[in-house]
Amino acid sequence: MAAHTPASKPLDVARIEALIDARFPQIHAGGRSLVVEEVGARSARVRLKHHDRYNRPGGTLSGPAMFTLADFAVYVAIIAALGEPGLEAVTTNLNINFLAKPEPRDLIASVRLIRLGRRLAVGEAELVSEGALHMSAHAIATYALPSER
Amino acid sequence: MAAHTPASKPLDVARIEALIDARFPQIHAGGRSLVVEEVGARSARVRLKHHDRYNRPGGTLSGPAMFTLADFAVYVAIIAALGEPGLEAVTTNLNINFLAKPEPRDLIASVRLIRLGRRLAVGEAELVSEGALHMSAHAIATYALPSER
Amino acid sequence: MAAHTPASKPLDVARIEALIDARFPQIHAGGRSLVVEEVGARSARVRLKHHDRYNRPGGTLSGPAMFTLADFAVYVAIIAALGEPGLEAVTTNLNINFLAKPEPRDLIASVRLIRLGRRLAVGEAELVSEGALHMSAHAIATYALPSER
Amino acid sequence: MAAHTPASKPLDVARIEALIDARFPQIHAGGRSLVVEEVGARSARVRLKHHDRYNRPGGTLSGPAMFTLADFAVYVAIIAALGEPGLEAVTTNLNINFLAKPEPRDLIASVRLIRLGRRLAVGEAELVSEGALHMSAHAIATYALPSER
Repeated sequence: MAAHTPASKPLDVARIEALIDARFPQIHAGGRSLVVEEVGARSARVRLKHHDRYNRPGGTLSGPAMFTLADFAVYVAIIAALGEPGLEAVTTNLNINFLAKPEPRDLIASVRLIRLGRRLAVGEAELVSEGALHMSAHAIATYALPSER
Repeated sequence: MAAHTPASKPLDVARIEALIDARFPQIHAGGRSLVVEEVGARSARVRLKHHDRYNRPGGTLSGPAMFTLADFAVYVAIIAALGEPGLEAVTTNLNINFLAKPEPRDLIASVRLIRLGRRLAVGEAELVSEGALHMSAHAIATYALPSER
Repeated sequence: MAAHTPASKPLDVARIEALIDARFPQIHAGGRSLVVEEVGARSARVRLKHHDRYNRPGGTLSGPAMFTLADFAVYVAIIAALGEPGLEAVTTNLNINFLAKPEPRDLIASVRLIRLGRRLAVGEAELVSEGALHMSAHAIATYALPSER
Repeated sequence: MAAHTPASKPLDVARIEALIDARFPQIHAGGRSLVVEEVGARSARVRLKHHDRYNRPGGTLSGPAMFTLADFAVYVAIIAALGEPGLEAVTTNLNINFLAKPEPRDLIASVRLIRLGRRLAVGEAELVSEGALHMSAHAIATYALPSER
């Protein structure tokens, strides 16, 4: 893969959240639950705050909520790596394994980008309930990157 | 795989919807969007009604909405095949490919179960915008089946 | 997705096999087992002839043999659709579900391309033992397409 | 997931290789290429020795060779964790992402088991060319575990 040029002016957490909010205002319908906590050159950490609407019998989180967190967290990592052009990235594939019932607490997604090419980015997301030692879910998401960069 | 015993009293669409509603009341938070249209011995068809909250820039459906539809539709097919015991099935893996931007219209998921074993069920879901000829997304979901049956 | 321009001079089975053989002579190491039976505008059918070296205890086919068949069959469908430029396509992702033990007989892969964009192609492969009614495996392969076409 | 009982008498590398060889003698057809280097309670490292038959144009490794390594390495980790009963485990799903062209050198798979339940095990495999810093491929394999344990 051609080495990818890092964003000339790295975006911080506040800027990334503002950019995503402007583009996808409906993401936070019902209350802001997705919080970007940290970003790096090829990584990101995003928190899904626990909320009654994600509950299932037994108080656990729903599959769609975990999918959303994984997808969003990889997207954040891509924007952190590419800057504003990264906003144009679109998910082409997501594979998610549900490993253990999550706790009725916040869920943290830790992402690392394992591929950042000219046309595709692939991110791995580990979803862990706050305070837990094991993963609740593991996902790999592939994004198609915008052509003009 | 051991041949699976069909539900002794097949569930019709109304009964399936009632069972799922009772178990997962929060699924329809914000308005009933997921409508079971038809079920068969190893198949199901479910409609996701178009709603503003699923919109993205350009009016297309969101990834999480499509994930939810695919996951839910396979679950419906499992309940149709197994009867009430199928309610205990839980998703272990879901792989979804986003193939083409969906139209700002209802999205129809057509599911066929490609494996129905003693412990695992695998369903394939094709998601097509109403009236379109091509798929917007394609998913394969694996469910772990309850042990006592 | 931009509509894809069909190959100006469609390739027939013999030509496709010759092109692949020239590019990947080692594919048939140990004896020609992969036979292209039929190709269409967005489809292909490929046979993996049964051979002792694929046997596992109980006489069934190995996972790697089934992976190879699925990957190869999707590649064939891409070349059938794009002509010689398709030879440059490379697999970026393959998801395979093993559904039922295959029989100790030839295995047939039926492929349809469910996406054929400018940069990515996605093919679905159903693997069925000759004479069987059910699938032994199901795979979805994503290929990155060459840029100059 | 129910905590899994570790093997009462942990198997070392030599014993694991001997058990697999006895069960799958054809794995090493053409020469022993898969070498178990290390195992842990929930991990394994396996080397695929470079060999001409895996070469592709440009000297890189083939997709099937990488699939085989990932699948085998996760299997090894399962046997290391479960002891001899693990030999009965069978792959139900494998998702592999090809990230970067591998070098014409040995390829090392590092596996960690991210789920070890009563019925399913899920292993993550990172494939890195010897001496390289980045992954050539990343895979997640799900295995169905034997019922009597």
